Amino acid sequence: MGQKISFSSDYTRNAHPAILKRLTDMGFEQNVGYGTDPICESAAEKIKKACECPGAEVFFLIGGTQTNQTIIDMLLESYEGVVAAGTGHIAAHEAGAIEFSGHKVLTLPNEGEETDTERYGSNIGKISAKDLEAYLDTFFADGNHEHMVFPGAVYISHPTEYGTLYTKKELSDISEVCRQRQIPLFLDGARLGYGLMSKRTDVTLSDIAQLTDVFYIGGTKVGAMFGEAVVFTKGGKPRHHVPIIKQHGALLAKGWLLGVQFDTLFTDDLYFSISKNAIDMAEELKSRLKEKNYEFFLDSPTNQQFIIVDNDKLNELDENVGYSFWEKYDDNHTVIRLATDWATTKEELDTLMNYL
Amino acid sequence: MGQKISFSSDYTRNAHPAILKRLTDMGFEQNVGYGTDPICESAAEKIKKACECPGAEVFFLIGGTQTNQTIIDMLLESYEGVVAAGTGHIAAHEAGAIEFSGHKVLTLPNEGEETDTERYGSNIGKISAKDLEAYLDTFFADGNHEHMVFPGAVYISHPTEYGTLYTKKELSDISEVCRQRQIPLFLDGARLGYGLMSKRTDVTLSDIAQLTDVFYIGGTKVGAMFGEAVVFTKGGKPRHHVPIIKQHGALLAKGWLLGVQFDTLFTDDLYFSISKNAIDMAEELKSRLKEKNYEFFLDSPTNQQFIIVDNDKLNELDENVGYSFWEKYDDNHTVIRLATDWATTKEELDTLMNYL
Amino acid sequence: MGQKISFSSDYTRNAHPAILKRLTDMGFEQNVGYGTDPICESAAEKIKKACECPGAEVFFLIGGTQTNQTIIDMLLESYEGVVAAGTGHIAAHEAGAIEFSGHKVLTLPNEGEETDTERYGSNIGKISAKDLEAYLDTFFADGNHEHMVFPGAVYISHPTEYGTLYTKKELSDISEVCRQRQIPLFLDGARLGYGLMSKRTDVTLSDIAQLTDVFYIGGTKVGAMFGEAVVFTKGGKPRHHVPIIKQHGALLAKGWLLGVQFDTLFTDDLYFSISKNAIDMAEELKSRLKEKNYEFFLDSPTNQQFIIVDNDKLNELDENVGYSFWEKYDDNHTVIRLATDWATTKEELDTLMNYL
Amino acid sequence: MGQKISFSSDYTRNAHPAILKRLTDMGFEQNVGYGTDPICESAAEKIKKACECPGAEVFFLIGGTQTNQTIIDMLLESYEGVVAAGTGHIAAHEAGAIEFSGHKVLTLPNEGEETDTERYGSNIGKISAKDLEAYLDTFFADGNHEHMVFPGAVYISHPTEYGTLYTKKELSDISEVCRQRQIPLFLDGARLGYGLMSKRTDVTLSDIAQLTDVFYIGGTKVGAMFGEAVVFTKGGKPRHHVPIIKQHGALLAKGWLLGVQFDTLFTDDLYFSISKNAIDMAEELKSRLKEKNYEFFLDSPTNQQFIIVDNDKLNELDENVGYSFWEKYDDNHTVIRLATDWATTKEELDTLMNYL
Repeated sequence: MGQKISFSSDYTRNAHPAILKRLTDMGFEQNVGYGTDPICESAAEKIKKACECPGAEVFFLIGGTQTNQTIIDMLLESYEGVVAAGTGHIAAHEAGAIEFSGHKVLTLPNEGEETDTERYGSNIGKISAKDLEAYLDTFFADGNHEHMVFPGAVYISHPTEYGTLYTKKELSDISEVCRQRQIPLFLDGARLGYGLMSKRTDVTLSDIAQLTDVFYIGGTKVGAMFGEAVVFTKGGKPRHHVPIIKQHGALLAKGWLLGVQFDTLFTDDLYFSISKNAIDMAEELKSRLKEKNYEFFLDSPTNQQFIIVDNDKLNELDENVGYSFWEKYDDNHTVIRLATDWATTKEELDTLMNYL
Repeated sequence: MGQKISFSSDYTRNAHPAILKRLTDMGFEQNVGYGTDPICESAAEKIKKACECPGAEVFFLIGGTQTNQTIIDMLLESYEGVVAAGTGHIAAHEAGAIEFSGHKVLTLPNEGEETDTERYGSNIGKISAKDLEAYLDTFFADGNHEHMVFPGAVYISHPTEYGTLYTKKELSDISEVCRQRQIPLFLDGARLGYGLMSKRTDVTLSDIAQLTDVFYIGGTKVGAMFGEAVVFTKGGKPRHHVPIIKQHGALLAKGWLLGVQFDTLFTDDLYFSISKNAIDMAEELKSRLKEKNYEFFLDSPTNQQFIIVDNDKLNELDENVGYSFWEKYDDNHTVIRLATDWATTKEELDTLMNYL
Repeated sequence: MGQKISFSSDYTRNAHPAILKRLTDMGFEQNVGYGTDPICESAAEKIKKACECPGAEVFFLIGGTQTNQTIIDMLLESYEGVVAAGTGHIAAHEAGAIEFSGHKVLTLPNEGEETDTERYGSNIGKISAKDLEAYLDTFFADGNHEHMVFPGAVYISHPTEYGTLYTKKELSDISEVCRQRQIPLFLDGARLGYGLMSKRTDVTLSDIAQLTDVFYIGGTKVGAMFGEAVVFTKGGKPRHHVPIIKQHGALLAKGWLLGVQFDTLFTDDLYFSISKNAIDMAEELKSRLKEKNYEFFLDSPTNQQFIIVDNDKLNELDENVGYSFWEKYDDNHTVIRLATDWATTKEELDTLMNYL
Repeated sequence: MGQKISFSSDYTRNAHPAILKRLTDMGFEQNVGYGTDPICESAAEKIKKACECPGAEVFFLIGGTQTNQTIIDMLLESYEGVVAAGTGHIAAHEAGAIEFSGHKVLTLPNEGEETDTERYGSNIGKISAKDLEAYLDTFFADGNHEHMVFPGAVYISHPTEYGTLYTKKELSDISEVCRQRQIPLFLDGARLGYGLMSKRTDVTLSDIAQLTDVFYIGGTKVGAMFGEAVVFTKGGKPRHHVPIIKQHGALLAKGWLLGVQFDTLFTDDLYFSISKNAIDMAEELKSRLKEKNYEFFLDSPTNQQFIIVDNDKLNELDENVGYSFWEKYDDNHTVIRLATDWATTKEELDTLMNYL
């Protein structure tokens, strides 16, 4: 690989140059371990400011699956499970990390509400407040529910695994259902930047901080080498979060590595400006694909685009550009994913379109 | 912290400049994920060569506790536990990460064999083949052992948590006990470089590869930003190691970050030459401490040194140099740990000795 | 309760009088513990004979959820899950016992094959070989399946939670799919007697022993105080099954209590003759319900019958006879379950029908 | 076995005849499931009265390991472990059931306090308030304790695995240490009756209810077929104890079987009067053994007696009477355990002494 241009995912590159520069400039500087250093503190402060959420508690973990596993384990009692869309990352693509820590993923349909899809894009990958409410009502009304797994938290991803986004109305409705039943709402923001900078969203970072109990700001896919910033928006972080994190094998010795990255990303709005690049490039990509009459598998308002490609075409593409196989469409066609990222260039788009 | 010089541990600094340079030079280069890239492959090849162990299987994880947890879980059946010294990292300082994955740590005394301590240093922190054999014999002779936790693997650290080292004879004897009972031997090498470059060891990397079933080469504490290279010496890596790693939240999306670091460390023997610096500095430190008549808590042949300090002195030190509290010695004295690392300089030693 | 007649379930009564008599006759007799006694051995032999399966390995556990949890944990590697119908007991009604032991339940539709339902009854609650095959094929064809939960065993219940039965053809097809992929097939027979004695089945105990890798013969619901007889049909019981069972808290000190019960049930075909009573009473119940024009929710060929009842009627019934709420049908009607058992009498039916 | 008289343990026999009679007399009576029946309620009331503890919450489980595992899991946060003597049942003889549910057993010495052993018997198997306090103080004083397993509950057994007993003073001191640090104290009373009826104890059932947070009254070894009565003395039972129990595979469908047994045992002080028989027989046994100059391995004030026997003698005994191998004493001698129980007779003692 190495040399071939790739649109297979948004985690193919290293960090933004500003991060690498800063790491290099540190030279042989020494810092205390496990995230107790001043750089992490500075990063946390900047994030709280960006979230307009001064009472929040912020800490940093390494990757998405690890973060999902650790946070969900923090939220749940031993007999509780987490509610998610059947297509949610925790339900489908984490090799059972949630079950490994003893909890069931309770799945809902992934069809979302009947929103203005023209305006906001497809609903695929989203749960709806209605389905969630119906699920919770049925559960608690069932005389046998003490023999079932209690819903102890709700997981949503934004953007979803299909690149789709909740509207502010949808998010508020889900949040309201959760609050009424005192079930914490957890938002997986592994690609949060790309959601926030979408041209078709009415949801801001501060909305998310207000409407969820805990969420994370993805770094791995948005300009960092690695790292996810966890925000307990109402300050409900467990009193002893360190041993829980350590027990999951998730406590980075040099925790300040995470601090440096997020401190850089949240200086001068870098996180947002580089996220915008991915969106701009995705919009450009969509235009060009439409020009060439490609059929879209779904209407995604973020950096992941899904198109239906003739298999012969695909063989050609294989040689020259990286992409993600998504699923078989029919005997002659395949759904593929093309993802732009914070560093995608027009030249890369040109190369891609040469082969499509 | 930031500015104050510290001897508190060997994981206070970033990576060796060669690693940071290489990461920076990659620019916007793209790589495939999850450690399936050619850089990881190259690093694995170099490590196999350094181990003189062509049949080995090598992969990379992020940190020590994570590696211990994941590898031990790979080695054990559900009803088995892992045998370790009571002072072993997995027994004492991992917040129950082993139990979190369902396994008991079965503890042995940490007194080692009666070796030539003049030559090889203290025995503290080591298990002995004799104690191990007695434990295993007693277990299997007990008519009730089906009601007890089966010993399914043996864990040793080299250097130990006290900076001490097994001799080749001791390692061979432990290895032999394990082999006779078909129990895999796992060596935690979080500080392996500092063990290998000790002036008082007869154990080589190739010895370790030969005498253990699986071990890891620590990067976090020896020149890398983070990372541990796992070596299944006889090729016994589980067939599906990826889902196991993912399930532990331990699969790094940009796995090639680990590859780059180890590929650099195992080019031109960098891992060994920088490890040697820590040892040289530790020897220098010992001389200077002896000159000043400090009493050593134990005789450590590696980069961690333990001395007994008057509490008044300690208060002074506190202001100026970082160190690790180890344990209370008596009402007026304290045991502290001073650790050198791959980047420690004479100037730093001078500063330290100014205050001691 | 106590005095009110109940059709709410098939586990409302104590054991068959022959079991209680035998337990009483033992007086102060002493036996060795943990199922290593000659009574368990005798019971195991009788079961192997009844299964026509001399190479089988048989042991006894206490209850259904415990048995499902323990056996599934025996069958799976740590990164594997168990495939089941979404309505399967392990998926829906065991409070997360499978996830508690670290494994995911991978759910399939519960619609069964297109069988001759006139002859064999409804398909609800059954998986189909076709769906299973499609699921497995899709899984292994997915390039990302190392990031997903591996299907490591298949769970079916017979009768299902809806009282329905697999045909011999269906069972053979599922078995064949499993064998081709070397995935063990596990059959939950908590109500096995009622399935075997159904007037609308072509499946025998020996068929089950031949077509599955492990199954259990339910005692709790079929004439025992408690107890389930686990049969590893091909002898694949784990070498150290005792510590695994003990670790699950499932090892009964006086294991011979289980032996006595199954030894009695498998003497002179008692298990089958008392199972037949439940079926005879269920058939009688069906006739009477049909006479009174009750609508059936599904066509069950075993001892559990599901009817749709007017809510006003139900209030009346409430006072006098026990039944199980199943689910809301519409605003004025409810689905209820009526279960006969090994001891149900015509007089009890008369009482029930008085109020219906 | 079957016919040979045995002193190997106190769980070799079925239930007291009064229990079997009552079970038989129930005939085909029906009861609701899962311990929600009036018989369990009646038994719970009687136990609360016997404990002089009206605010207690009582429920029933099946066996000792299961009860230890489930209660400890109820008491602990995910990052906490349970403190116990190294010889405690949960530490040594439960095949890792505690670790299976994710928790570490943190072990203390088993040497007890310096009590009046002449009066109260040996201290082996007991923890001391002093050791416990020192352990807790050291833990919380350690600056690194967030990287260690938090002590979340304290486990003691009474009688211990060696038949020894805490004095009221010792129990009060341990209780006080726990209360000061808000760590719940859990007492394993698998053989509680034999402790309470010892002629050398000053501890009553009401003392235990007052000094612990949760304990259980053993039935399996004291007159029941099986069953342990769990008493949350201050009413701190988890709000949703049913799903937790079910998740452990520990919820008995016919929960009233447990209710019937404990309701019978706590009617007319049956539990105490039959426990007294075991003690009377143990005292008689001790006298006879002393007459024959047998050496005792320790001084046990309850129904388990440990003596040192010549191996030749033992071979003879082997043929005729059951006993428990405890441990090798020296090359020619062995420590064995002889246990009396609620049904032991003088005739059985005569038979035993014939061969000793």
